[in-house]
Amino acid sequence: MTEKFISIEDVVHKVIRPEAGAINTFIGTVRELTDGKRTLYLTYEAYASMAEKMMARIGTEIEEKWPDAKVAITHRVGRLEISDVAVVLAVSTPHRADAYEASRYAIERIKQMVPIWKKEHWDTGEEWIGNQQGTKAYALGSKTKEDLHG
Amino acid sequence: MTEKFISIEDVVHKVIRPEAGAINTFIGTVRELTDGKRTLYLTYEAYASMAEKMMARIGTEIEEKWPDAKVAITHRVGRLEISDVAVVLAVSTPHRADAYEASRYAIERIKQMVPIWKKEHWDTGEEWIGNQQGTKAYALGSKTKEDLHG
Repeated sequence: MTEKFISIEDVVHKVIRPEAGAINTFIGTVRELTDGKRTLYLTYEAYASMAEKMMARIGTEIEEKWPDAKVAITHRVGRLEISDVAVVLAVSTPHRADAYEASRYAIERIKQMVPIWKKEHWDTGEEWIGNQQGTKAYALGSKTKEDLHG
Repeated sequence: MTEKFISIEDVVHKVIRPEAGAINTFIGTVRELTDGKRTLYLTYEAYASMAEKMMARIGTEIEEKWPDAKVAITHRVGRLEISDVAVVLAVSTPHRADAYEASRYAIERIKQMVPIWKKEHWDTGEEWIGNQQGTKAYALGSKTKEDLHG
């Protein structure tokens, strides 16, 4: 996890190795329009230690399901502008079918499991998004990062 | 097409745009072992003008099937060492499901259509591979790049 610009090249280079012939990456960028609403910018906040732990767990999970796979995940937090890179996921495998499957699986698990919250700054107002699947914040009850830490 | 090192970042940046929230990339790297044989290095040769035309055609094909998609493809030719990046494909779309599907489709079309030949330099000898699907060279008869150009 980082507050700085993510280098796609750096994430990919973590999984390049002689055994691999295929790398699939997923890169999430900040989209301007969602259901007709215009985003001005986003803020991501994370329960950092748990987010790191969950990303590591997803890596292990993938490497158990696809024993030939190697995974790297980096998520950015803080303020992001339109088109900024929010997350980079890279999976390398010997052959390409596995790289696609494992990558697809990994991004769904990231969206499900990693405690990172997104605040939408629309041109019409602001809204906390509970998690990356777009669930509303109140689905989490009143838990804040501080509650989760405490 | 290029004889130089491919910048993954440069290919991805061709498809980043405000309308997109998802980018899927496929990166092909030189694998050391294939069915127990060890590759020392590879040589790729292309029928360059046709390869460029075919890559552009695949881009158009994708953008017809997925009207919200944008595609960039770069292939390297010449001598490549183990773990070198041979091809980078990037597809951006508003949402991730389409990015994965279009990317998967694109790489299969590249392997089918783009006239790039791979020469395997094994530790036990050399072998021309007819196309990127692994078809043997003789499937192409005696055609060389010169024949195809002539």
